[in-house]
Amino acid sequence: MDFNLVAEDKKSKARAGSFETDHGIVETPRFMPVGTQGTVKAVPQRILKDEIKAPIILGNTYHLYLRPGMEIMEKAGGLHKFMNWENAILTDSGGFQVYSLSELRKLKENGVEFKSHLDGSKHFFSPEIVIDIERTIGSDIMMVLDECTPYPCDYDYAIRSTQLTSDWAILNKEAFDKSRPKYGHKQFLFGIVQGSVYEDLRAKSAKDLVKLDFDGYAIGGLAVGEPAEEMYKIVNFTTDFLPENKPRYLMGVGRPENILEAIERGVDMFDCVMPTRNARNAYLFTSEGIVTIKNNFYKDDFTPLDKNCNCYTCTNFTKAYLRHLFVARELLAYELASIHNLNFYLNLTNTAREKIIEGSFIEWKEKIISKLTQRINSNLEE
Amino acid sequence: MDFNLVAEDKKSKARAGSFETDHGIVETPRFMPVGTQGTVKAVPQRILKDEIKAPIILGNTYHLYLRPGMEIMEKAGGLHKFMNWENAILTDSGGFQVYSLSELRKLKENGVEFKSHLDGSKHFFSPEIVIDIERTIGSDIMMVLDECTPYPCDYDYAIRSTQLTSDWAILNKEAFDKSRPKYGHKQFLFGIVQGSVYEDLRAKSAKDLVKLDFDGYAIGGLAVGEPAEEMYKIVNFTTDFLPENKPRYLMGVGRPENILEAIERGVDMFDCVMPTRNARNAYLFTSEGIVTIKNNFYKDDFTPLDKNCNCYTCTNFTKAYLRHLFVARELLAYELASIHNLNFYLNLTNTAREKIIEGSFIEWKEKIISKLTQRINSNLEE
Repeated sequence: MDFNLVAEDKKSKARAGSFETDHGIVETPRFMPVGTQGTVKAVPQRILKDEIKAPIILGNTYHLYLRPGMEIMEKAGGLHKFMNWENAILTDSGGFQVYSLSELRKLKENGVEFKSHLDGSKHFFSPEIVIDIERTIGSDIMMVLDECTPYPCDYDYAIRSTQLTSDWAILNKEAFDKSRPKYGHKQFLFGIVQGSVYEDLRAKSAKDLVKLDFDGYAIGGLAVGEPAEEMYKIVNFTTDFLPENKPRYLMGVGRPENILEAIERGVDMFDCVMPTRNARNAYLFTSEGIVTIKNNFYKDDFTPLDKNCNCYTCTNFTKAYLRHLFVARELLAYELASIHNLNFYLNLTNTAREKIIEGSFIEWKEKIISKLTQRINSNLEE
Repeated sequence: MDFNLVAEDKKSKARAGSFETDHGIVETPRFMPVGTQGTVKAVPQRILKDEIKAPIILGNTYHLYLRPGMEIMEKAGGLHKFMNWENAILTDSGGFQVYSLSELRKLKENGVEFKSHLDGSKHFFSPEIVIDIERTIGSDIMMVLDECTPYPCDYDYAIRSTQLTSDWAILNKEAFDKSRPKYGHKQFLFGIVQGSVYEDLRAKSAKDLVKLDFDGYAIGGLAVGEPAEEMYKIVNFTTDFLPENKPRYLMGVGRPENILEAIERGVDMFDCVMPTRNARNAYLFTSEGIVTIKNNFYKDDFTPLDKNCNCYTCTNFTKAYLRHLFVARELLAYELASIHNLNFYLNLTNTAREKIIEGSFIEWKEKIISKLTQRINSNLEE
C-alpha cells in the first residue's frame, strides 16, 4: 500500500495523508462507520455514501461469518456486492468478537475454538481460516487474527498473549501471501500491535510486526476499560515504533475527544460503534456539546439539533420533533440520530485533516475539545 | 371542496378525479400512507415525498393529541411544520382509536370519555373538542367524530349507534363552521357514513350526512372483521347514496385486492397500516405475488424483490440481502421493506387511475388480481 503523507503537524505527531484502494481513495485522519452485519445500523447505503460521504466502512468478520455465512457471501460476489456498497471496506479479524461475544472460547496454539452467540454451534478460527474468510468477504483492508488482551491484564499473561499475536501474525502473512483475491480487486493486510498497557511489550509487538512488512498497522487492545490517559500514553508510545509511510489505525476508538487526542499522537484511522449506538440511545454529539434528546428540556425547542451541521436531520427537523420520535419509539428516530452522529464524526476527522494541512490543528483541538465533552442539558431534569 | 371528475369507467362505478388542497393536488383513486404519530413508520419524509410521491398522508388525532400533545403542536405551528411535511395531511377523528386502543371507554350522549393507553390518564372527546384538536393539528382534511361499530353488531345497537353518529355529525359541522383554521391554510371536513352491515342504516346514515353538505364522505365501520364480500356489498350499496361531485373515502382498507374491488364500486380514497406494518413483518407485496422474505427460499436469491418495481429497495438490493437484514433484525430491513410496500400501494392506485382514464380498468383488474393474492413461496419451508 502506498500511503501518501500530505502534511505533518509541526507541533504534534498529527499527520494528514491518503491511500488508494480499488474502491476509492481514503483521506486520513479518517473515522470509519461500523457496519457490523453488512449494514451501518439504521442508515441506508446511499446516505452513507452521498451525504455522510464515508469513503470506507467496517464489516465484522465474526458476524458475517456466522450470518449470512461464507457460502452466501461467496455466491453474492463478496460484501461490496451483497450490501451494494461501492466505496472501501475494512474487515476486522473476528478476534475481538470471539473474545467478547462468544461462549466457551478455548484458545489454542494454532487458533481459537468458540461457540456462536446465535445458536451455540461450534467454530474454529485460525490465522489461515480468517484470511480465507476475509478473502471471501472481499474487504479492501483485511485485519490479522490476534488476541485482544482484556483490561486489566497481568504482565505474565500479557507476555504470552503478545507472543501469540506475533506468532499468529507470521501465519496470517504467509496465508495472505499464498492466497489471492476472489473478486478481481486488490486486498491489503494490516497487522495489529498488542501488549496491553506495558510499553516493553508494545515495543516488541510493534517491532515483530514491522519486520513482516504489513500494508498498515493497527493498535489493538485499547479502549477496553483502561483510563483515557493510559490509552493516550500507550498510543503515543506505540506510534513511535510504526513506519511513517504506512497508515496507523486505532481500533475501536472512540469518543470525539479520544479521536482528536489520538490524531495528535500520530494515528490516522478510527472505528467505533459509538456514533451509531449512542444515536439509537438518544445521545447526540453536536458542535455545542452533548444533547440527550429525550430530555424534557427539548419538548418545545423548535431549533435544529446543531445549527452548524449540514446533515439531513439538522437541516430538516427540530429538537422537539426528534425528541417526540424518541419518546414515541418511532423507527425514524434511530435513522435521523444515526445520520447526524455519523455526519458529526466524519466532519470531525475531515476538519482535523484540514487543520493539520493548514498548520492549526493543536489550536483548533484545544478550542473545541471542552465543548465536545460537555453535556448541554446536564443540570436539567432527565 | 371542488372534486374534479376526470373520467368515469363505463363498465363499473370506478372514477378518476382530483381535488386541490393548499398543500397540493391529490389525484384519485389514491392510497394515503398512515403516519400515526407524525411519521410514516420507518420512512423519511423526503423519500415519501420525492420517491414514493405521496401527495397526502394520514395523521392520527388520538395519538397526536396524547403525544406530543396539542400545546406543542400549536407552538410548532401545526403538524405540517412539526414533521416537516409539505404535501397534504388528512386526520382521522380519533374515534376509532378511542374504541380500539383506550381503556375504560364510556360513551355519553355528548362525547366519549376514555383513558390513555400510554399512562391511563382520563380524557374526553366530543365533536366540538375533536374539531378544535384537528384545527390545532392543521390537517388539510379533517374527519368528524363518529362511533365506529364493531363486527358483528346487533341491529338494535347499530340503530342507536348510527343515530349517534348522525347527531354528532351535526355538532361536528357546526363546530367546524364556527371555527377558523389556525395557520392560514384551508381545511376541509369529511363526514363518515356508519350503519354496520345493514343496508337500511347505511342508506339513512348517508342521507343524514349528505344533507349537511360535507366536503367529502367516508365509509367507516368496515374492515373490522366482516368477510370481504360483505364489505364489497356494503361499499357498493353505500356509494349510490353519495354525491358524484365529492370524494369518497373507505377508511382503513386494506389489502391490494380490497382496494381494487372498492375502486370498482366507486371509492376514491384509502388508508391502511397494512403496507407499513406488513413490511415490518417481512411480508412484501410484489407484481408477481406476496413474498415472505424471511423464508429460507430466498437465502441465495440475488435478484431484486420485484423486477417491475422502480423503488430504491428493488433497484439497489437483492432478496438475499433483504432476507439477511430481517433475519439479523437490522433496522434497515424495516425501512427498505416499508419503502417498497408503500411504493407498491401508490403505484397500484396510480395505475388504477390510468386504466380508468384509458377505459381498461376492469380488464386490468381481472388480469392482476389473482397475482396480488398469491403467495409466491407458499409451498416452501418457512
